[in-house]
Amino acid sequence: TINGDRLWNSLMEVAKIGATEKGGCCRLALTDLDKEARDLFVSWCKEAGCTIKIDKMGNVFARRAGKNNDLPPVMTGSHIDTQPTGGRFDGVYGVLSGLEVIRSLNDQNIETEHPIEAAIWTNEEGSRFAPAMVASGVFAGVFDLEYGLSRADEDGKTMGEELERIGYAGDEPVGGRDIHAFFEVHIEQGPILEEEELPIGVVTHGQGQRWYELTLKGVESHAGPTPMDRRKDALLGAARIINAVNKVGINNAPLACSTVGMINSYPNSRNVIPGEVFLTIDMRHPEDDMLSKMDAELRASIDAITEEIGLTQSLEQIFYYAPVPFDEGCINAVRSAANLCGYPNRDIVAGAGHDACYMSQVAPASMVFVPCIDGISHNEVEDAKPEWITAGCNVLINAMLEKANQ
Amino acid sequence: TINGDRLWNSLMEVAKIGATEKGGCCRLALTDLDKEARDLFVSWCKEAGCTIKIDKMGNVFARRAGKNNDLPPVMTGSHIDTQPTGGRFDGVYGVLSGLEVIRSLNDQNIETEHPIEAAIWTNEEGSRFAPAMVASGVFAGVFDLEYGLSRADEDGKTMGEELERIGYAGDEPVGGRDIHAFFEVHIEQGPILEEEELPIGVVTHGQGQRWYELTLKGVESHAGPTPMDRRKDALLGAARIINAVNKVGINNAPLACSTVGMINSYPNSRNVIPGEVFLTIDMRHPEDDMLSKMDAELRASIDAITEEIGLTQSLEQIFYYAPVPFDEGCINAVRSAANLCGYPNRDIVAGAGHDACYMSQVAPASMVFVPCIDGISHNEVEDAKPEWITAGCNVLINAMLEKANQ
Ligand SMILES: NC(=O)NCCC(=O)O
Ligand SMILES: NC(=O)NCCC(=O)O
Repeated sequence: TINGDRLWNSLMEVAKIGATEKGGCCRLALTDLDKEARDLFVSWCKEAGCTIKIDKMGNVFARRAGKNNDLPPVMTGSHIDTQPTGGRFDGVYGVLSGLEVIRSLNDQNIETEHPIEAAIWTNEEGSRFAPAMVASGVFAGVFDLEYGLSRADEDGKTMGEELERIGYAGDEPVGGRDIHAFFEVHIEQGPILEEEELPIGVVTHGQGQRWYELTLKGVESHAGPTPMDRRKDALLGAARIINAVNKVGINNAPLACSTVGMINSYPNSRNVIPGEVFLTIDMRHPEDDMLSKMDAELRASIDAITEEIGLTQSLEQIFYYAPVPFDEGCINAVRSAANLCGYPNRDIVAGAGHDACYMSQVAPASMVFVPCIDGISHNEVEDAKPEWITAGCNVLINAMLEKANQ
Repeated sequence: TINGDRLWNSLMEVAKIGATEKGGCCRLALTDLDKEARDLFVSWCKEAGCTIKIDKMGNVFARRAGKNNDLPPVMTGSHIDTQPTGGRFDGVYGVLSGLEVIRSLNDQNIETEHPIEAAIWTNEEGSRFAPAMVASGVFAGVFDLEYGLSRADEDGKTMGEELERIGYAGDEPVGGRDIHAFFEVHIEQGPILEEEELPIGVVTHGQGQRWYELTLKGVESHAGPTPMDRRKDALLGAARIINAVNKVGINNAPLACSTVGMINSYPNSRNVIPGEVFLTIDMRHPEDDMLSKMDAELRASIDAITEEIGLTQSLEQIFYYAPVPFDEGCINAVRSAANLCGYPNRDIVAGAGHDACYMSQVAPASMVFVPCIDGISHNEVEDAKPEWITAGCNVLINAMLEKANQ
């Protein structure tokens, strides 16, 4: 078992980097704060005797040698970036659990056959740079390196430039190497485990996702003297589309999710009928057929609404992955570990995207979930009980040990 | 009559200050560009022999002496600030017409009984600093000086600070003096005159306005694992309210206007259910009873929508004025001038707010409208024909002369 207090203290230490007034974290990808958190993780890993490698996407790998270093590593990891109003656990819990596994193995003088690696994946959130999980995606060969490095934020700064700036543009090739097994521990970010009073979720699948960008164009005009029947109000179109996006989610209940998270309206002046609106759409479902059905419903609604108001539209799907089935062997390793530790558990589908979803394309992979308070995440009030945090890492170390000695 | 070419050339000269790629103007109130345009106007007025006075709200008055300088002035004027994506005529046409009247009187050696004043009113658009027409409002005693100077932009900079910064915080008291008559010439900003092929509108009324600010609060949460039926999505509420605002306009057709011009959603991240939205509402009607009815409809809709989704709301009416009847004598002066010049014309209601609306509270006032292409304003493509521009200023000079010799 791991040292729960030490893990909790490390989490609280990193939570100071980008701490917000409401008790959350704002540590956007590749900012100075991201660098500060990475530096701290790297120094802790070095103290724990690890060697550090950084790849061209800024992914960080801290390696603890095994008995046979020609064998591929058993890897764990997650991300250290947050949402603009994020919490203290989303991502960083999985990163520091990797460190805690290594520290605990050291404490107990446990040698493994395979080497162990604890990873930080760059820009998982997809908030500063879209899409999400872009760096584990490059590692898994889903995106090419050029695509990854050229993702730009709202100010036009690219991931490549920002990696150089903060000193995390490494030399290692991205991916292309054998991984014996990959595990990721994460808070559930949904309500199920807490409601069922289970400390552990054995993650069997990740749901599919489609992300879109939509630009609507109408005619900018004066809000006072322009009669209602002569308007081409882009924001009115956006409003009806936001409502339609919500209906797509409701129509495909109970498993569908469908959200508009971002909207920018131009010129955004009180007495001007908006001429242009940009918005993003995020749709998810555990079944790919249903996700395709939702896509068709979305497109039909957008066509009808823009035609009715007289707007032009440009809709682009910028991100897609099919639902992910995790590896049977890794799922079983997680379930056995939970049972071994005596933690009540259930199988669960990941509602969020995770680096493990991409890693599952190039390695046997699965995940361990722990509850979070009220199922709330992507919110500064995101919270988790110390006993859950300890439980998840205990399951992780046992699942990793099973694989590392196979 | 005035010199149409000179007026047009002055307009095109000022249009260079803040010119945008699409042929419009971005000259927000109290920016360096506003200062540059003011400086140019002041230098032209001095060349035309005027004395300049600037009041504590930064309103600029260029005065041409009359035969009897104890008599109160006949004043004209408008604004030199624009929308972020504004045009080359909205406002500045009325300012430079004042200058052109003075230049033409000089050319023709015409002396008037009353002095003549041409004014720039600060921050008419209400875009950088809300509400609109705040400085003519202070002049008219509708707002007090402290209120006016403390209006802040989105960065928290106040009008008082910005007036100091650009050197237009004058010494003169704001208002409190006699004005014999006030006229303002402006593009219609709506489609009526162009459709009816009339170069002149005799403005008899300004419609009433109510501006609101609305903040909605829900619960920020993850777009992936948060089931549809557990969401409190502030942007979904905003979307339904935007649609309801539009319906209030349509329900009270044909004269009502009802618009959401500005929306800011937080945290505005693709995979976060928005927890908070700020939006503005602009409602207008020529009859005050109807405006009250619209207000009641708006409030009922907001209550129903926020309750259904489980959002909290804070709605504030930040700006109101009742419909404005202009002065019979001034209206007649405009109509007679149009007829004298042989311009086909009709009576018309101003759909936009204008400095003349506030001035009418402390002086006999009315307005002259000219058409604009496709009725479009608050848009970079805003345009007007030179013959309309000339016609409006010809009507202005004759209306002013009638009053200035009474
Ligand atoms: N775990 C997590 O919050 N990932 C962000 C990507 C997503 O939106 O699913
Ligand atoms: N004329 C004009 O555009 N005024 C701005 C204030 C308003 O929105 O009516």
